[in-house]
Amino acid sequence: MSGRITLEHGSGGALARELTEQVIYPYFQSQDYPELVDAGSFSLAGPALLTTDSYVVDPPFFPGGDIGRLAVFGTCNDLAVCGAVPLVLTLALVLEEGFPIADLHRVLHSVRSAADEAGVRVITGDTKVVPAGKGGGIYINTAGVGRATPGLELSPARIRAGDRVLVSAPVGSHGLAVLAARESLAIGTTLLSDCANLHPLCAGLAELGPALRCMRDATRGGVAAVLNELASTGMGMEVLEDAFPIRPLVAAAANLLGLNPLEIANEGVLVAVVAAGAEAQALRILRGHPLGREARGVGTAVADRRGKVVLETTIGGRRYLDMPRGLLLPRIC
Amino acid sequence: MSGRITLEHGSGGALARELTEQVIYPYFQSQDYPELVDAGSFSLAGPALLTTDSYVVDPPFFPGGDIGRLAVFGTCNDLAVCGAVPLVLTLALVLEEGFPIADLHRVLHSVRSAADEAGVRVITGDTKVVPAGKGGGIYINTAGVGRATPGLELSPARIRAGDRVLVSAPVGSHGLAVLAARESLAIGTTLLSDCANLHPLCAGLAELGPALRCMRDATRGGVAAVLNELASTGMGMEVLEDAFPIRPLVAAAANLLGLNPLEIANEGVLVAVVAAGAEAQALRILRGHPLGREARGVGTAVADRRGKVVLETTIGGRRYLDMPRGLLLPRIC
Repeated sequence: MSGRITLEHGSGGALARELTEQVIYPYFQSQDYPELVDAGSFSLAGPALLTTDSYVVDPPFFPGGDIGRLAVFGTCNDLAVCGAVPLVLTLALVLEEGFPIADLHRVLHSVRSAADEAGVRVITGDTKVVPAGKGGGIYINTAGVGRATPGLELSPARIRAGDRVLVSAPVGSHGLAVLAARESLAIGTTLLSDCANLHPLCAGLAELGPALRCMRDATRGGVAAVLNELASTGMGMEVLEDAFPIRPLVAAAANLLGLNPLEIANEGVLVAVVAAGAEAQALRILRGHPLGREARGVGTAVADRRGKVVLETTIGGRRYLDMPRGLLLPRIC
Repeated sequence: MSGRITLEHGSGGALARELTEQVIYPYFQSQDYPELVDAGSFSLAGPALLTTDSYVVDPPFFPGGDIGRLAVFGTCNDLAVCGAVPLVLTLALVLEEGFPIADLHRVLHSVRSAADEAGVRVITGDTKVVPAGKGGGIYINTAGVGRATPGLELSPARIRAGDRVLVSAPVGSHGLAVLAARESLAIGTTLLSDCANLHPLCAGLAELGPALRCMRDATRGGVAAVLNELASTGMGMEVLEDAFPIRPLVAAAANLLGLNPLEIANEGVLVAVVAAGAEAQALRILRGHPLGREARGVGTAVADRRGKVVLETTIGGRRYLDMPRGLLLPRIC
């Protein structure tokens, strides 16, 4: 099957079945998913976590990744930061009439390799087709189920004054890489999305036990949004602008575009809050993995300034780092 | 919060958080989902089923239902026909810039009431915003987890010659109701979608034990698509055109529009295959529930005509009822 997606591919008739059987299903057929049924089976005992994310990134292919890789890692990361081991995924496609079937193959291949890399299986799916002008080429939703880690309790409510805030990797790459690809900016060829599977970092930090307070992946709204969300449960946060790892290219491009790297979306940056005494061990764990080599402590939870994030700036001033407002970068995930 | 959805509602910043906290989350906050986190927790022991469906119905509100009700029942039905008890759902919204927030409230209210009716909980969600001209007002994805019923093995591979094919309710209403609403056809006011929660019927039939071979909900492609799918695993199917329950209004409208009611999507029609000796009991079970009052036996599995569905027509002729081809009705779910 080649050419482009037509409305008939979404009709539920013969062509829809051919698309599923010949194009989509072959990427995921397995012992665990031996026939095309309405639901895939899995098994688990005890507490589990369920999450979902839709991906509407524009363009669907960008330096360092694509919508398929994003859809797998993004959803697995949502489970991982909650302390779960990702197990199984759904894959729901909303295709726009006219989308090239070759591009669909490219995305599906990417979904499968990312799933293999993350150790999860896609066990069920769905495909809808919307008319030209009612979609964005391809939108993907993945939902994921993970096995909760017994005894691991993670919540911003567990943050105490003096706790340290760690960031696992340089910030701002993903949003800028997508923007560069969309607007054909020259920086696009060297700036790569950081799209990655954060589970190894999360599982490593889980060894800290109760000293690990909570984790977040800093996607839409960047680290600024995450820090404000964590502060909103009661603590204040004091962070050092200089402490955040930022690649020079990202800093330069963000400066040129008038964007704050701390507000730009990432797809491979973990924010973790740990007890002060566990900071050194946490950084050793993070830096022991290729994704966390540049991990840094960036700030401290404080008892005053409740609900606020205070940024000590490079030039020595202090200002609030607010929850981002305004348009930011739309459709970066 | 009132007015319309803007791109900023999808940015991950302050306005996105307000939309989630003030508009969406209040419909689903519960003891089981006490705070806004990336993943919702649930618990089950043993075999489970996972399913997903995206809903892109146009228009989102139609006589007898709306996209919210569809998104809950459709996904629960996919679990129910596989013999599972639906437990928890995800809710992922893709909103188009300009979508009225009042309509969003209407959809969310509908999701919540349908979930209550089906006995499931929405425990996690996601919201994305796409620019005007890149969406359809509102698209919804729901994924669902259900508890598998131990010992209940359902598969088209279990169909034997002589088995009977049952249909639980009149066919063709949903697709025509949506089409009428979309095209402002006059039939739209009296023709209602059959959108319904099929789990009570499925759970009832499960009492048949091994005599229940398999179940399907006849959505896209109608009963014609389901029968062909069941036949594709090896058996032939012989069905009587006259035996299918069809409301006179649906028959008349389909005739006028040149559509075959057997190819029109339903959202509340169960197709079940049972051992011949269990047909009477199966019909009693179905007819004992308001959704199954008009249940009928419509045909028989046969050893010849493998992979084919033969329709004995009203005027006494015999023809193949093929897997639907062509455009059918796009965006009816």
